[in-house]
Amino acid sequence: MLEHIRIVLIGTSHPGNIGGTARAMHNMGLTDLALVAPRCEPLTADTVSRASGADALVHGARTVETLEEAVADCTLVVGASARSRTLPWPMITPRALGERLPEELAAPERRVALVFGREDSGLTNAELQRCHAHVHIPTNPDFSSLNLAAAVQVLAYECRLAWLARQEAEPEAPAPEQPLASHEELEHYFAHLERTLIAIGFHDPTTPRQLMARLRRFTLRARPERMELNILRGILSYTERLVPRREDD
Amino acid sequence: MLEHIRIVLIGTSHPGNIGGTARAMHNMGLTDLALVAPRCEPLTADTVSRASGADALVHGARTVETLEEAVADCTLVVGASARSRTLPWPMITPRALGERLPEELAAPERRVALVFGREDSGLTNAELQRCHAHVHIPTNPDFSSLNLAAAVQVLAYECRLAWLARQEAEPEAPAPEQPLASHEELEHYFAHLERTLIAIGFHDPTTPRQLMARLRRFTLRARPERMELNILRGILSYTERLVPRREDD
Repeated sequence: MLEHIRIVLIGTSHPGNIGGTARAMHNMGLTDLALVAPRCEPLTADTVSRASGADALVHGARTVETLEEAVADCTLVVGASARSRTLPWPMITPRALGERLPEELAAPERRVALVFGREDSGLTNAELQRCHAHVHIPTNPDFSSLNLAAAVQVLAYECRLAWLARQEAEPEAPAPEQPLASHEELEHYFAHLERTLIAIGFHDPTTPRQLMARLRRFTLRARPERMELNILRGILSYTERLVPRREDD
Repeated sequence: MLEHIRIVLIGTSHPGNIGGTARAMHNMGLTDLALVAPRCEPLTADTVSRASGADALVHGARTVETLEEAVADCTLVVGASARSRTLPWPMITPRALGERLPEELAAPERRVALVFGREDSGLTNAELQRCHAHVHIPTNPDFSSLNLAAAVQVLAYECRLAWLARQEAEPEAPAPEQPLASHEELEHYFAHLERTLIAIGFHDPTTPRQLMARLRRFTLRARPERMELNILRGILSYTERLVPRREDD
């Protein structure tokens, strides 16, 4: 289970925090680290010092340019968020996240990504809206900004507790389920949906009024299966065919 | 409750860890820090940098020579221990420790100390034997040594969760939510959806292939809000307008 949990750091500025993250991950048995557009050299003397022996995780980390690439194969994407945003999103506590993991990772192709933002500004709204849910580590409201590696430590600790609890429990036959849509499939669907809504005149991207964000939130909440997404895309294709082509105008 | 929990660091070597401890404590609402015979200057540029605004806790910390002095007024002393020692001691998990705190701190004169050892060698047997219990943070057996500030972070997090759980025992007004769609609104939506899917040629009610059932299941799983359903019905209306009218056939 733990090997199917990916820690994703976006736009990290301090190599020490990457080292501290690697140490926290390795301490808790996590191994999969992805760095999205780091704003520093990931491997420095600071990294190695804070990693304290776990720098192999940084050597093995995948560095990519976008969140999309980092989580394309993930079936559950959870963003660490300090604040409630303008458009409320499903919130989950670190403990509830841990308790959910055994079921989320019951099938071998499932992948969970825990996404952490920049030291100074966290995750952008666009990044948060690519997540199924947001996890908030409870903090002192007067001093709420956790160190990045400390935040990873807390969530990784909850992952390990959940894994240990599962070890202690009787092995359970997972309910046979349809495969869930991956992040990449979902993003293709959202792109298709937006194109179609523009084509039929329902959506004007110059005055978006949070339309796509609302449709994202609704859809992600349902955790679509691949087959369901295929149905929805089929509907979009049929709808598109009805749109008069420009040359006919 | 949180103000009666003391973090005690023994023989710390790295000022950065004292700063990281202060930050972790302040993030979780802890305020009482004691340093026992630190092996470094506690307040350096490293301390302030890692404390990231929480260095007031280091300024306010009491520095003493012995564990005895640091915990003299405490009614429960718990030592953080990575290993099981030759003489088995009552062990407690971080979670169980948190759950015990409200009762332990029920009377105003009670004090709990959480004691952390040296970065390189932890607590001595003599120190461990001055504790009521030992707390072990579960770790990867192949890489079990947590960073000092990370260990403080995990236990401070459990303290805060226990405190929050006690707060929540008080009845609280539920967060105002968008109204969910009623059953009737959902049924109107499903009827509208089916009409539209037939009109665009996607759905043939004579060979339904469970299409509507799948779309129902998907939609109901998301527990749609009324506003979301209005958006979806708006999309259907725009789609319907594109369908050529029969008399045009």
